[in-house]
Amino acid sequence: MFTTQLCRHLERWSVGSATRFINHNRSVCTSVSVFANKTKQIELTRNRYPGLKKGPYSDLTGQDVDYFSKLLQGRVITDASDLEGSNTDWLGTCRGSSQLLLRPKTTDEVSKILEYCNGRKLAVVPQGGNTGLVGGSVPVFDEIIISTQLMNQIISLDDISGTLECQAGCVLAALDSYVSDSNLTMPLDLGAKGSCHIGGNLSTNAGGVRLLRYGSLHGSVLGLEAVLASGEIVDCKSTLRKDNTGYDLKQLFIGSEGTLGIITAVSILCPQKPKSVSVAFLGCETFEIVLSLFKEAKHSLGEILLAFEFMDSASMDTVRDNLNLTSPVSEFPFYVLIETGGSDGKHDEEKLTAFLENQMSSGLIADGTVATESTKIANIWGLRERMAEGLMVDGYNYKYDVSLPLSKFYQLVDDMRVRVGDLATRVVGYGHVGDG
Amino acid sequence: MFTTQLCRHLERWSVGSATRFINHNRSVCTSVSVFANKTKQIELTRNRYPGLKKGPYSDLTGQDVDYFSKLLQGRVITDASDLEGSNTDWLGTCRGSSQLLLRPKTTDEVSKILEYCNGRKLAVVPQGGNTGLVGGSVPVFDEIIISTQLMNQIISLDDISGTLECQAGCVLAALDSYVSDSNLTMPLDLGAKGSCHIGGNLSTNAGGVRLLRYGSLHGSVLGLEAVLASGEIVDCKSTLRKDNTGYDLKQLFIGSEGTLGIITAVSILCPQKPKSVSVAFLGCETFEIVLSLFKEAKHSLGEILLAFEFMDSASMDTVRDNLNLTSPVSEFPFYVLIETGGSDGKHDEEKLTAFLENQMSSGLIADGTVATESTKIANIWGLRERMAEGLMVDGYNYKYDVSLPLSKFYQLVDDMRVRVGDLATRVVGYGHVGDG
Repeated sequence: MFTTQLCRHLERWSVGSATRFINHNRSVCTSVSVFANKTKQIELTRNRYPGLKKGPYSDLTGQDVDYFSKLLQGRVITDASDLEGSNTDWLGTCRGSSQLLLRPKTTDEVSKILEYCNGRKLAVVPQGGNTGLVGGSVPVFDEIIISTQLMNQIISLDDISGTLECQAGCVLAALDSYVSDSNLTMPLDLGAKGSCHIGGNLSTNAGGVRLLRYGSLHGSVLGLEAVLASGEIVDCKSTLRKDNTGYDLKQLFIGSEGTLGIITAVSILCPQKPKSVSVAFLGCETFEIVLSLFKEAKHSLGEILLAFEFMDSASMDTVRDNLNLTSPVSEFPFYVLIETGGSDGKHDEEKLTAFLENQMSSGLIADGTVATESTKIANIWGLRERMAEGLMVDGYNYKYDVSLPLSKFYQLVDDMRVRVGDLATRVVGYGHVGDG
Repeated sequence: MFTTQLCRHLERWSVGSATRFINHNRSVCTSVSVFANKTKQIELTRNRYPGLKKGPYSDLTGQDVDYFSKLLQGRVITDASDLEGSNTDWLGTCRGSSQLLLRPKTTDEVSKILEYCNGRKLAVVPQGGNTGLVGGSVPVFDEIIISTQLMNQIISLDDISGTLECQAGCVLAALDSYVSDSNLTMPLDLGAKGSCHIGGNLSTNAGGVRLLRYGSLHGSVLGLEAVLASGEIVDCKSTLRKDNTGYDLKQLFIGSEGTLGIITAVSILCPQKPKSVSVAFLGCETFEIVLSLFKEAKHSLGEILLAFEFMDSASMDTVRDNLNLTSPVSEFPFYVLIETGGSDGKHDEEKLTAFLENQMSSGLIADGTVATESTKIANIWGLRERMAEGLMVDGYNYKYDVSLPLSKFYQLVDDMRVRVGDLATRVVGYGHVGDG
């Protein structure tokens, strides 16, 4: 049972949910992926990078395991095969050799774990859904893995203010489904939603496809609780939409990748769930047209614009060649996915139709399709969201998630193509234009 | 000329723009105002509270003034009558006795001022538009006033991403007017917009009436620059919508009231300007109905709901008795102001009409009016926005801006009425329901 749970992450994909105490170079948003002609092998990270040296940390002893076994009755994993899934990242590019995975259920247990580890100088790596694509959620050496998997309780939902309080290990899609009964939605959405944990979303300041509409987590997170390496519990658990008491310390934990502590609970503002959702998929001749469309979409679709994504033809080739997905439009150098949603389906449809007609007649778009039915919407989103999965089929993956000023967004991909030449199977560019 | 500029703040009103190095108890959102039967006198703050003692700071000398005069050629004010306006807060409840006001134009000048003051142990108080209602923008003793009034340059506007960069002394309404030419709007709006500075808005984490729609400044501020007490310039000037590089230190400056440093420049995300705006003003029998309407409005109006404000009958009496304003609806215990705005006027009107008809037929509202014409909209907003001004006519003002869970929002006002009995002219409750 447990093995199944732990290994399920191997079926997961996309960005989002890693917290850890060892810092990584990181960046966000638009992805430039370079695939080398190399067969994938899950080599130990420490072997691949022999220059990496373990810090001045202790080695795990039987006494340590005994301590945790007493603390977490039946929630301590030491079996090597059971640990395999949590030692390996989803992309299969990083593998650690942790001998211990802990599954606390409460903040107090996390506190006791960290206090003990701090006293014993044992390195730890927090792990949420292990859906991250930059290796941040798995050990580099033999760090103890602290999983938030069993910290999955919803604490409260105030359906007037839209404030949800929950533990850090709640899965994003489960939360979305829960608040959906109160006509609310989660303010972030990303491909990994079926597995990623809200605590990991905060720790990595995950943006996702709806950042454009609902803004960053710095705005929608109202409060959080975290445990420092010392075991001290930091309580910033406000549920008020605005709370100006003292410094807003919780903001530091958002995006700090677990380097300041482990997030154990979250309160977050949930916007109204759109009553209707439509998706348009369009072909464009140049990246400049993609940017013009973005500006026009913001202007014409305004408050109903939920997402604006782009992918280039090499990206489309990837999901077509490797996943047998079909493009709903003819061949173009660039494709744009626009999602709209609002409180009145008829109004939304009118706005989207007017926008598309205007852009067709002004010549910005030559081909496109619109979907309002959920299966068709899912198919179109699949082209964009299954990109990481499609790219893995090619082999070893160099993935750069970067934020750049919009006008210089695509230059990086062109430069990269020149730079790597025929060393790579393909160089693809895709991502959230809405993030800037 | 200069006297005029400095004293103009006496015509200003409402919350928003103070930065200072001396911390205050503070809070936000909904206002409970208690007015004592007392004639207003602008007494020196240090005389009113003789228990307050100046910290271990130096006294200003002629040499200090010489230093600043050389640094800020012609932008150093020492004349007592010229200083009067900046020594006094807008409500006329706090008055300091600063002998020096400095008007830097650049971050570098602010840096040199603070470095000098730090070396000489001279206390300072930063001042934006001096529109604050809690005395945070004026000296308590003889602090040097550092005004951002001349730091009013717009640095750049990227109309694709909607990112505005400007100096901290830009007036909010001037920025709104500037970005309006690119079909954008500022993500915050408050009564003091004609005077308050964007730097002060950030320092106090001003919410205002559109927090409901555009979220808090923690989400919409993309970057800032600040000068620490040592003179060190902290550069967090990202203009990217998402930037996960390192800790998000800028967040600490937002709402820290100048205790960490003086904000000198800001980059902020501007949403699309609504193409049409409508305002409804409604009468309600109970506060519970106000909350039910809020929930329904969020559900039915969704993405076009810009503001949801309430005021009680004592608030309405205040603006009617003291400012001769007229209510557009008959008498009720509570009133609600709803503002909507979107990208299609016809759609917005249909949504608002449908919402109001539903609430009328379900009996939640008994009387109401809707305005789409700008003068009528301004008149309705006047009832709510000129509240602080109306209350000042009554005399000395105890003002509590608090955030509470919505369900307990109004209990505080009722409790306060019992507590103060006939000691007060009136106890009124009003504010942003949308803030939570």
